[in-house]
Amino acid sequence: MESRIGTAVGGTAHAEPVSVPELLNRTRALCTPPLRAAVARLAAPMDTVAAYHFGWIDRNGTPVAGDGGKAVRPALALLSAQAAGAPAEAGVPGGVAVELVHNFSLLHDDLMDGDETRRHRATAWTVFGPAQAILVGDALATLGTEVLLDAATTGGASAADAARAVRLLNTASRRLIDGQAMDVAFEQRDTVTVAECLEMEGGKTAALLSAASALGAVLAGADDRAADCLQRFGEHLGLAFQAVDDLLGIWGATEVTGKPHWGDLRQRKKSLPVAAALAEGGEASRELAEQLADPQGRGEESETELAARALLIEKAGGRAWTQEEARRQHTTALAALDEVPMPDVVREHFVALAEFVVVRER
Amino acid sequence: MESRIGTAVGGTAHAEPVSVPELLNRTRALCTPPLRAAVARLAAPMDTVAAYHFGWIDRNGTPVAGDGGKAVRPALALLSAQAAGAPAEAGVPGGVAVELVHNFSLLHDDLMDGDETRRHRATAWTVFGPAQAILVGDALATLGTEVLLDAATTGGASAADAARAVRLLNTASRRLIDGQAMDVAFEQRDTVTVAECLEMEGGKTAALLSAASALGAVLAGADDRAADCLQRFGEHLGLAFQAVDDLLGIWGATEVTGKPHWGDLRQRKKSLPVAAALAEGGEASRELAEQLADPQGRGEESETELAARALLIEKAGGRAWTQEEARRQHTTALAALDEVPMPDVVREHFVALAEFVVVRER
Repeated sequence: MESRIGTAVGGTAHAEPVSVPELLNRTRALCTPPLRAAVARLAAPMDTVAAYHFGWIDRNGTPVAGDGGKAVRPALALLSAQAAGAPAEAGVPGGVAVELVHNFSLLHDDLMDGDETRRHRATAWTVFGPAQAILVGDALATLGTEVLLDAATTGGASAADAARAVRLLNTASRRLIDGQAMDVAFEQRDTVTVAECLEMEGGKTAALLSAASALGAVLAGADDRAADCLQRFGEHLGLAFQAVDDLLGIWGATEVTGKPHWGDLRQRKKSLPVAAALAEGGEASRELAEQLADPQGRGEESETELAARALLIEKAGGRAWTQEEARRQHTTALAALDEVPMPDVVREHFVALAEFVVVRER
Repeated sequence: MESRIGTAVGGTAHAEPVSVPELLNRTRALCTPPLRAAVARLAAPMDTVAAYHFGWIDRNGTPVAGDGGKAVRPALALLSAQAAGAPAEAGVPGGVAVELVHNFSLLHDDLMDGDETRRHRATAWTVFGPAQAILVGDALATLGTEVLLDAATTGGASAADAARAVRLLNTASRRLIDGQAMDVAFEQRDTVTVAECLEMEGGKTAALLSAASALGAVLAGADDRAADCLQRFGEHLGLAFQAVDDLLGIWGATEVTGKPHWGDLRQRKKSLPVAAALAEGGEASRELAEQLADPQGRGEESETELAARALLIEKAGGRAWTQEEARRQHTTALAALDEVPMPDVVREHFVALAEFVVVRER
């Protein structure tokens, strides 16, 4: 396929984004209208529940001005289309589909986990009830498949490539569900191993970033080898992303993350720093294990106690190990990217986006 | 494609089933092993929850001898492959996929509706908790798509036909979800129109029977016209099936249906006989409307009061209208079947199965 990089947006090379914020803005400009159109296909009242969940309206139905989220997943889908020599637009069905599947999982996970807020807003199940959260999650999952199949009838992809894209997304959905199943099972346990934690995070975070990084390329007809490399890039980027998330969940400043102080520790979340600290086996590690095995005071720890626990995790090497793990995964991701031939400007975008994802404060 | 009817099972014409029970037995023999294999791919503990839901094990994990359900949906899928001139085996991925999607919807619906028993057994969410019911439902839905895509790699279908099959199933899933959304919304209302009731039942029952009736044919490479006719056959058969179900929900003998006496009336379910009776407008119709609008005594009606309500529905013509509707839909289904050329033995099976579905006592 002839390379059309530089003419993808607006028909001139000048339109190619020059920064990550510009890249994300372009992504939202291309993906939000078809995402809204897909959601508008849902029967009432599911369309309203979905629009609330996406942050487009408030609980009274009044439109809300929002940035529509970070849009990292659809940005990867658009870049992967460009990597295959197609315009960014060819990746749009992939970008829309990953957003739909991501939000299907958020709707169901929030309900299963009993989470009452997400990004400072009441979660959908608390506003519209559990039945609507289940229904709308189910509907978004099927819409994701529909959008990819439509790419073959209206979006310029071949039927075979649309089917490859559906398989890619469906496999990611299965891993998402497996990851959430592990997360739910871990709730009942005092400890998890680093390997279990990585497998869970592979499902909950890496699977969809992996699919996103290849979906646009697959829709644009890329060969399996290129698609595999792009998937590996997304997989390792996802693991790096989650390692950073786990660090911020303990040591991130509340005013930046928007999450409660020591929230992950208070919930006794089985995150990488904790699993790594428990695996270390020294004095701090053993003391941490004792604290986590103690059913007393669960969820009622004081700020001081939680700060002391964070220090134990750090002393047992959990913080340093996770920082190193994030760097390792980031490096492995970039190595996978190097295996795929693509226009320089596209590679630069991928690298900048990976940096943005891994080096962040929230 | 060369017709292989008669050699589909066992290699001889004698192996072709000669009765509906034999047809259903053959269906279970062909579809249950791959269905179990698909479910076994789920990560623990979801595989156990699914096996319990399907009735293969009890709550302690002990294997249970069961007939595996009526298997009408997979039987339709297998017949539709034969209608397209392929062996019944070519429809197996379709049969497995519709069972997976059907059970995804049962798992989620039972939770949403708060139903504590299904076929005399405790529902999965009451045994394993709501989170497992959500997760396993999600997993079965994705498995359904996976099984159809696998048909292209291992089952002999072309990639394009597998993609057509995925679209067929995905559209049915969307309608299933829409139907359940209507059902949930109707819970808050005193009355629904006949048209609304038919639309809801079209989603909840007819959509999947419609997809089942064409999935095998699509996997076997049937043209769009044949697939459309088979879908219409399944659609009208589904509406006939649901009309009969609605009649049995009010006038079926408890010892035969296994459902509580007057259960549908006690729950004030918006079924066809009720909607038709309300639409009639005469004296009995108005009295019925008054009773249903009265919030007093909801769910606490005596047997005598419910028997009187059933009589009101009958007086207002709701029973006769629904009986006539079942006959009408059955006739329309058979007319659609007549439009598709197929071997006589396959048509006879379709006709016998349709008769079995519509003329039943449970």
